[in-house]
Amino acid sequence: MVTLHHFYRSSASFRVRIALNLKKISYEQIVHDLDAGAQRSPAYLSVNPQGLLPALAVGRDVLTQSAAILEFLESTYPDPPLLPATPMEQARVRALFHIVAADTHPITTMRVARYLKTVLGCDEPTIQHWKQHWLIDGLTALEDVLASDPATGRFCHGDRVSLADVALVPQVVSALKLGVIVEAFPTVARIHEHCMQMDAFRDAHPDACQFQQPVQAIKE
Amino acid sequence: MVTLHHFYRSSASFRVRIALNLKKISYEQIVHDLDAGAQRSPAYLSVNPQGLLPALAVGRDVLTQSAAILEFLESTYPDPPLLPATPMEQARVRALFHIVAADTHPITTMRVARYLKTVLGCDEPTIQHWKQHWLIDGLTALEDVLASDPATGRFCHGDRVSLADVALVPQVVSALKLGVIVEAFPTVARIHEHCMQMDAFRDAHPDACQFQQPVQAIKE
Repeated sequence: MVTLHHFYRSSASFRVRIALNLKKISYEQIVHDLDAGAQRSPAYLSVNPQGLLPALAVGRDVLTQSAAILEFLESTYPDPPLLPATPMEQARVRALFHIVAADTHPITTMRVARYLKTVLGCDEPTIQHWKQHWLIDGLTALEDVLASDPATGRFCHGDRVSLADVALVPQVVSALKLGVIVEAFPTVARIHEHCMQMDAFRDAHPDACQFQQPVQAIKE
Repeated sequence: MVTLHHFYRSSASFRVRIALNLKKISYEQIVHDLDAGAQRSPAYLSVNPQGLLPALAVGRDVLTQSAAILEFLESTYPDPPLLPATPMEQARVRALFHIVAADTHPITTMRVARYLKTVLGCDEPTIQHWKQHWLIDGLTALEDVLASDPATGRFCHGDRVSLADVALVPQVVSALKLGVIVEAFPTVARIHEHCMQMDAFRDAHPDACQFQQPVQAIKE
């Protein structure tokens, strides 16, 4: 049994929830309320000294960083595979993943927004514009790569779900929440819609988690 | 033969240069001058529509995103391995890699600095402080994880070089350039020094590349 430390609205946690669902791995969960700063509590810092979500406890080991967790799940629960067969195809999927996970998401996180507000004195509309700018930048890059490559299918890579979709969907959900017109990125929008027809994606969505009563959260 | 599109000062390019050197893969190079905005030239955008460095051309395929390129090299040139043997150890190495490649580096890039300057009107000292803040944040996270775990050895993971070191060294070099006191992070500083005794790291350093005359650059 594995235990996921997460928060419904954390985009990187959303990625891991999708992969756990796709691979039908049952997991316990401990919810850390980012709004209340729970990820900085001494209890959680003893789990993950970096104080970031998600973390996945596997026995006595704790895995951090969504990309590292997802690769671990891919190695240890290979069915269904979330990476294609050849190194070259894998490189394409991982590149799409990192357009989101490296080039886009980190610039739009709460800790960056906090710096903009407290150190640079930015007001709320300026911070919203910041987030929208980088989300649009990231979705533009995804669209360019996806729309120009015949390797794109119903999903980001052909007709099988992969780690690229696992990254794309949470990023689109964040963009929608910030009022970005996702239809301006037609390939991205189409893949998002296609993924959201699957239970694994729907059940991992922040709105689905928000109304669950997390068993482990009570024990905390 | 593979061809690396890079720039001496690009931190993500530096990672790929180190790995190519460690695995003794000979490569041609095409240098794109970031200072002159060459990565946004139509010629390069036809190679990598995202206009970011590095990219690795392998035959007719072009790989982008340093993490994806490094995993590709690991699959196709497994000797010497830059990932440890077990999925759990691999997760530790990849997590360390992403503390740099996802949580730190993307927030300090030129494109973010450009937004701070042109949209938010930040002056040069404010931008320097921004970069220092996030570099210190990242080095603090690395130090916490490395110093508290007996799995850390002469390198980030035991006594063999890994992808974690490949990410750590360029980040430390960026921090030094920005005047960050790296000695405040003793484990990080020690590993950086140890790596820099190896030719593969030294030859990939921006200062070493800067004085090379790149053959392919002339053809551009």
